[in-house]
Amino acid sequence: MKLIMAVVQDDDSARLMEGLVEAKFRATKLASTGGFLRSGNTTFMIGVDDEKVDKVLHVIRENCQSREQFMSPISPMGGNTDSYVPYPIEVEVGGATVFVLPIEKFVQY
Amino acid sequence: MKLIMAVVQDDDSARLMEGLVEAKFRATKLASTGGFLRSGNTTFMIGVDDEKVDKVLHVIRENCQSREQFMSPISPMGGNTDSYVPYPIEVEVGGATVFVLPIEKFVQY
Amino acid sequence: MKLIMAVVQDDDSARLMEGLVEAKFRATKLASTGGFLRSGNTTFMIGVDDEKVDKVLHVIRENCQSREQFMSPISPMGGNTDSYVPYPIEVEVGGATVFVLPIEKFVQY
Ligand code: NI
Ligand code: NI
Ligand code: NI
Repeated sequence: MKLIMAVVQDDDSARLMEGLVEAKFRATKLASTGGFLRSGNTTFMIGVDDEKVDKVLHVIRENCQSREQFMSPISPMGGNTDSYVPYPIEVEVGGATVFVLPIEKFVQY
Repeated sequence: MKLIMAVVQDDDSARLMEGLVEAKFRATKLASTGGFLRSGNTTFMIGVDDEKVDKVLHVIRENCQSREQFMSPISPMGGNTDSYVPYPIEVEVGGATVFVLPIEKFVQY
Repeated sequence: MKLIMAVVQDDDSARLMEGLVEAKFRATKLASTGGFLRSGNTTFMIGVDDEKVDKVLHVIRENCQSREQFMSPISPMGGNTDSYVPYPIEVEVGGATVFVLPIEKFVQY
């Protein structure tokens, strides 16, 4: 068995949990912040049999892969309009940092 | 040494911490949610010498083992009484999912 | 690669993150409580190449090492003044409990 620790962005967190449940994997979410990824993030802890590690990685990549996205600029609210960009800008979102750890023993009570 | 990661239900969390302290083990609790177990849960991180792993597992099982419990139904508050079950029902509570991880190095500063 | 899990006191947490960023290491912080250390604590998760483990441990020790500190006593506010100690007292602060875990696979998406 392996313990997979995956740090993903908060925005992708609900979608990843859904993807894992659909694929019949069970995960625990740890509240986490900063560091590996740009904004708020969540750390998933997933215990799986060796032969299913690739399947879990597939689900993570499908739901969290780093990608470009067009963001509509927020209209300035009574602020300085000089810096206002009136067209959508491209930003990078998502991404996952994944550690696969060996397990010496796994028990359930 | 080993690092034991144990996901247990919130309800058993205080009791487990007490059991660990009594047995002279030190643990860190990580805020965690959903997944392995039905409701809110807590992840315990416990570092121990190899020969004490079984003792820690014993303390976890003693305090968190999955068991059946009779729950009094909540009286319906101005709701539909059609679905109201007026007798205690049996539910499964507790349970622990435990990973024992190898440690390559352990240091304290 | 290794996964370093370091439990440090909340007071040292911001300083450690700064030290890690300066040294070009990326870390994720997990909200954690009690156990290994006296008061509120934070668990850092840091993924590093094998040859950089010692550098990370150096940064942790530099920013979190257990040390003595003089604390000014808090003036009693309408309480019993019999137990009031009018001179600074020495207390132990800081400290870090660090686990270095082997990684079987590391991926980023
Ligand atoms: Ni697919
Ligand atoms: Ni016993
Ligand atoms: Ni230095």
